[in-house]
Formats: sequence, structure tokens, C-alpha cells
Amino acid sequence: MAASNPAQENGSIAPEPTFKRQLNASRLQFTQASILHHVPEPGSTELWAQNVATDHMVICRWTVDEGWDDPIIKPFGDLTISPLASCIHYATQCFEGMKVYRGFDGRLRLFRPDQNAKRLVMSAKRVSLPNFDPEQLVELIKALVRVDAKRWLPEPGSFRYIRPALIGTGRQLGVQVPKEATLLITMVCWPDFSSESPPGVQPRSDLRLLTSRNNTIRAWPGGFGYAKVGANYGPSFASHCEAQEAGYDQILWLLGEDGQVTEAGASNFFAVVQDKNTSKLQLLTAPLTDKVILDGVTRRSVLELTKTRLTSQLEVRDVKFTIKDLEAAWSEGLLLEAFVSGTAFFIKDVSTIRVGDHNIDLPETQQNTTRFGPMIKGWLKDIMFGIEDHEWGVVVYE
Amino acid sequence: MAASNPAQENGSIAPEPTFKRQLNASRLQFTQASILHHVPEPGSTELWAQNVATDHMVICRWTVDEGWDDPIIKPFGDLTISPLASCIHYATQCFEGMKVYRGFDGRLRLFRPDQNAKRLVMSAKRVSLPNFDPEQLVELIKALVRVDAKRWLPEPGSFRYIRPALIGTGRQLGVQVPKEATLLITMVCWPDFSSESPPGVQPRSDLRLLTSRNNTIRAWPGGFGYAKVGANYGPSFASHCEAQEAGYDQILWLLGEDGQVTEAGASNFFAVVQDKNTSKLQLLTAPLTDKVILDGVTRRSVLELTKTRLTSQLEVRDVKFTIKDLEAAWSEGLLLEAFVSGTAFFIKDVSTIRVGDHNIDLPETQQNTTRFGPMIKGWLKDIMFGIEDHEWGVVVYE
Repeated sequence: MAASNPAQENGSIAPEPTFKRQLNASRLQFTQASILHHVPEPGSTELWAQNVATDHMVICRWTVDEGWDDPIIKPFGDLTISPLASCIHYATQCFEGMKVYRGFDGRLRLFRPDQNAKRLVMSAKRVSLPNFDPEQLVELIKALVRVDAKRWLPEPGSFRYIRPALIGTGRQLGVQVPKEATLLITMVCWPDFSSESPPGVQPRSDLRLLTSRNNTIRAWPGGFGYAKVGANYGPSFASHCEAQEAGYDQILWLLGEDGQVTEAGASNFFAVVQDKNTSKLQLLTAPLTDKVILDGVTRRSVLELTKTRLTSQLEVRDVKFTIKDLEAAWSEGLLLEAFVSGTAFFIKDVSTIRVGDHNIDLPETQQNTTRFGPMIKGWLKDIMFGIEDHEWGVVVYE
Repeated sequence: MAASNPAQENGSIAPEPTFKRQLNASRLQFTQASILHHVPEPGSTELWAQNVATDHMVICRWTVDEGWDDPIIKPFGDLTISPLASCIHYATQCFEGMKVYRGFDGRLRLFRPDQNAKRLVMSAKRVSLPNFDPEQLVELIKALVRVDAKRWLPEPGSFRYIRPALIGTGRQLGVQVPKEATLLITMVCWPDFSSESPPGVQPRSDLRLLTSRNNTIRAWPGGFGYAKVGANYGPSFASHCEAQEAGYDQILWLLGEDGQVTEAGASNFFAVVQDKNTSKLQLLTAPLTDKVILDGVTRRSVLELTKTRLTSQLEVRDVKFTIKDLEAAWSEGLLLEAFVSGTAFFIKDVSTIRVGDHNIDLPETQQNTTRFGPMIKGWLKDIMFGIEDHEWGVVVYE
């Protein structure tokens, strides 16, 4: 049913159809924070808490009738949300995870921000949130970085985490598409999971994975595992917690009766195996075809670097494979390496995969073997911190 | 790692372990609203918007260290939530849908509130939110009803919707169990979907269903379809919208290659079929075994009433059945009736199921046939509005 038109009700001429405004970074408004917050020390408990934001945030409201308001940078602070807001009842929410790096040349860089922005557009669609131009999102992220990086990211070789999120803020309990939404961008202190440990915890650079049980499945063909939506996370915490209580770091999510290997925790999973017949090395990772796994920006970058820089050494095989395939390869000494990739954890070696009542153990250092995970990680790090000049490292001019 | 203990750091004696407080309705605090809101007229656009709350709400905070605070009834109003809150990023959220009825005897009744409260405990567990005593939740619901029903629900034969929700409000972007949560109970104006239509829309008492496509499923075995968590809703809106744009009311969610019939929209689905061999009538509905469908309170009540009051006429068959089974029955004239049940829609007849390029049409009135949906609906209504005195109708004394 069309909404009633007040102009018509009053007998006056009907107005032109409302122009719906697009997300427009050039209309950004700015309110400077008058109180600046304490910046946590590197490696501190505060930093490991992953809950300290920088002084400002970006916020932008959208309504179905008007489109996007002017975006605003304002002091970081609480949101006011209706108890009837769609996002807190119906998980109309999606987000991105990315980082901003202070290069060794003193310059700030984002890593392939266009990829994150496009994925947020895709995720938003999956949960019926509004569309926007991904380039405008990148501009807003850059604007926030420009405001806060000087105080919050002065140190070459360090980074902060950036969390763009889009949530359905309309006050509506009907099971229906959100009529109002809010885009948020926050910048948060984040530990370096790939090479550090929390204060007081024995440093360990490897990751121990526990395979999921048959009765707990993260995502399914026809579901939404491929989108970065909140709905993939909350329901997985219980399994994650179980893994940690059992002494593991992450769940290795399997799917189906045959135990297809999909993701590890909230990261993509890779295995380096040697082909029995050809003796060639292959980089195995789950394919995107079924829309079960996340199209990770780091995953994509790992595959692209393997294809361009390791052409003759390592063949990319993004095909379905099962935990039985991994076990078989391992028992024949053909599973050489496993690692996970993602923005939160970056790239991290897997040392153990627990399957039922036994382990697939992958010794951390194998002599006489090239370790591809650390090699690719090194290349990516060089791009992120500006040691290698590469189009993936997008400079943010201050 | 255990949190550091400030008392120990200061050299004093370590305190006793903190006592974690339970949810306790007897400690309810009350702040009366000074401004009372306009109550929408029956059948008004305002009421159909499903976004007008009554004057008060219940709120209660939980923290991992302290447990549950004292619950509070206070004026309905916006929440303040951190932009880093778990519930808006990771869908750590679950809810219930229930109604309060003003009986024809002038008394207020809830319908089996213990069932909703127990289910909220179960849903909370599925998304790693805190546990509580379901009886305390029922007491808090009753308290809110007592405060607002006089103004908001004076008319015998009418009802309001009640929305208890539990959300992860901790400021934490780590992929981890919420350390802080908030219980909310709101009471909202809700249309009678089972017998009315929005203003200006042609009244239609039947429901038209469109079967889901293979590439979109609502829930899967090992997932969380059985829990009333936000994660089941947002990702389903796009399909729902598609159905409405194609002239249907709800999606009939199928699962798997064989097209198992699971739920209709956010309601449970029932079919009355005649057994080909025995000529006996059967009430078909999806079973709870795979944890794919919601254990609906209305569903449960329909099955229990069928077992006790229709013993010799209608056999309950909560077994897996497919859309092909339904089509086969229909083509032989053995599909007599279909209806959906749920709190939001109550019980509503299904007139059409669209499958691929053809319809399963179920004429709204079939002469010479007992219609079980309307019969059971009538019984439930009698219980809800106090025409029949039944233990399922729990009186709230004002």
C-alpha cells in the first residue's frame, strides 16, 4: 500500500517524487572531540580487550524515503537505539574487518579497501539493508583515518583495526525489510594475533584447531556463510568456547556427512599438500562455489600471490576437500603445511588439527621444506607496511 | 587467564568469590512514566505499523562478573548501546513473541507463558547469552502487563503483543562470548493478522505461500532454526520480500533436494491429508527431530488439542514430508486443508501454495468437510479470552 500523501490530503498539488540521496563522502560533516582518550600501550591488557575505540567515529543514517543523510564524523560514543530496532531483534546487520597500517616510510595505508567495501555492499543485500557506492565508503574510512591516525597510530610498523558496520535501526517489530539503517565506522585497538600473545600468556605462534561435530554446522549451501553478516557469528560462539575450553584456539568447520573442510574459526583455511602421483605441491582451500565460505580479502590475496609469484612451485586448488582427504595425505607424509588467513588473525600456522580422538600434527618447523604460509605473510606485510610498493597498499594522505 | 585482583595487588586479603546474582523479579524497581503516550485506535495505520510500544518497559542488565542486576520497569525509551556492542555485530540476540489478552470476563491472560520463557532460556544458550530462571521472566512479564494493561488493553476481546528479548550489550569486538547482556521486555500494539487487513487493503482471511527456491534455505540440520534467535530472521527477509512482490504472503521453506516442508514464513505449517489406504485423516507437520524448525507454542498447542479433542477424527503425524508428498495428495483430492500457526499470525488458512510454475489450490470453503484449522483456532481463542477456563490461560491479576 502506498503511503498517504499529506500534500494531496490538503488539496494542494502533489510534489515531485522524493529524491533519494546517495551515500556521499564529499558531504561529510565534522564535530571534533573535545575530550581525547588514553591510547593503550602496545601489548597491554587494554589493547587485547579489543574494545578501545579511537576518539572519533563515522555515522550515517539512511531511511527508505530519503536515502542517505550527510555522513558525520563525531566523537566516539554510545548510540541511541530503539528497543524495537530491527538490528537487535532480527540480525539485520553486516560488517567488515580491515586494518590501517603505519608504514615504515611513515605513510598510512589501507589494504585493498575496495574489496571490503564491495563485500559490505554484498552482505548488506543478503540481509535486506540498503545499497551504497563502495567508493564512498572507502572515502569515509580514509576520512576517519586522517582524523585519528596521528594520535592513535604514530608508530611505524603498527596498525589499528577498522570496523565498518551497517545495521537496521528502524523501530519495527514486523518481520520485514528495515526502513531505516545506520552506517557506522569505528577504529579500534587490536592485538597482533599473528605474532603476539596476551600479557601473561605463554607466547605461541601456532594455532590448534578442533574439528566441529556433526551436530553443529556453521553454514550451509543456500544459507549465508559467504556474507559477513552477524548471523554467522553469535551462533558459532558456543562451539568456539567449547574448543577453547578443550585447549584449542579455533573450530575447523566441517560440512556434510563427508566432512568437507570449510573455514577455521572466522578465518579461511589452507593446506599445502604434495600430489601423490605428480609429486607437485598444491595449495588447497575451500571453493566459493556453494556460497558457504567467506570470500576473504586475505584469502583472495594469498591465492593471487601464489598464482603470480609461486607459479612453478605451488598450484592453487580451490576445490572441495574433506577432512578424510587431509588425514590420508598426512598419514602418507604428504600434508606439509596448514595455515589460516583473515584480517583479524592475518596469517597463522596451524600446528594441530584434532579429529575425533586423534591429532593431525604439523610440526612448526620442518627442516628442508619451504614454508609457504610465512613466505606469503611476509610478502603481504611488505605491501601493508610499504616496504613493497604495490597497488594493494592504498596510501591515505594525511 | 584469570582477571587480576585489585585487593591482592594492594596487599589486602583476597575477597570471597563474587556472588553472581540470579534474575529476581521480586527485586523489581519501578519508575513511573510522567508522559503517557497516545493509544492507537483498533485497526489504525499506527497499529498496523507494529512499532508503537506502551508507556513502560522492563530492562535488566547482566554482567559475567556480577550476574543479574535488579530488574527495572521504566518509561519506554531508547537504549544507549556502544557502537562496539556484541549484539549489533555478532547477532548475540534472541527473543520471544507472546500476547496478553483481555478476556470477555474482563480479566487479563497470558497464553502458556512458561513455554515462551523456557524457550528463551534455550535460545539464549544457543547464542551464548546468559541463563536465567524462566519463572522469573514470567513474573517480570506479568509486572509489565499490570502496569500498562489498564490504559493499553481495556477492551474485552483484544490483545497486545509482548516482546521479551535478550541481547549481548558488552563492548567487545573480539569473536567471543558476551560479557554483558541486557534483558528487555516491551509491549507493543499488534494487528490481528488472522482476521483483519491493513486499512485500505482488501480483507482476505487466507494465506498464499510461495515455496522457497533451492538456492535459499532458512535453516539446516546442525544450525539454529529451532532457536528463536535474530540470526534466523534478517537473512530471510529478502525471500519474504520476493514472495510479497510476486503476490504471495509468505515463503514456504523447503529443505534439501527432496524439498522437505519445514516452516511457512515465521510460522509452523500444517496439512490435513486423507490416508489413501485407510481413508483416515492425518494432521501433518514437520518434526522437531533435526532442530530445523521452531518448537512453536501454538504448534505444540495445536498438536495437543488434536490429540486430546480430535482423537478419533484426526491423527497427529509430526514426520518429515516433502512438497512432492503434498502435491501427490492434492492431485488425488486427499489434501483437504492447510494452515499455519504462530503467535504473530495465530492460525491462518492457506489457500494456495505456489510450487515452481503451478499452484496447489485449496478452496477456502469446502462444503461437507470439517475444517480443523478454524475449529482449533476457535478452541484456542476461547482459552485465550477466558471463554473456556483452561490451565493454558494464565490470569494476570491487576
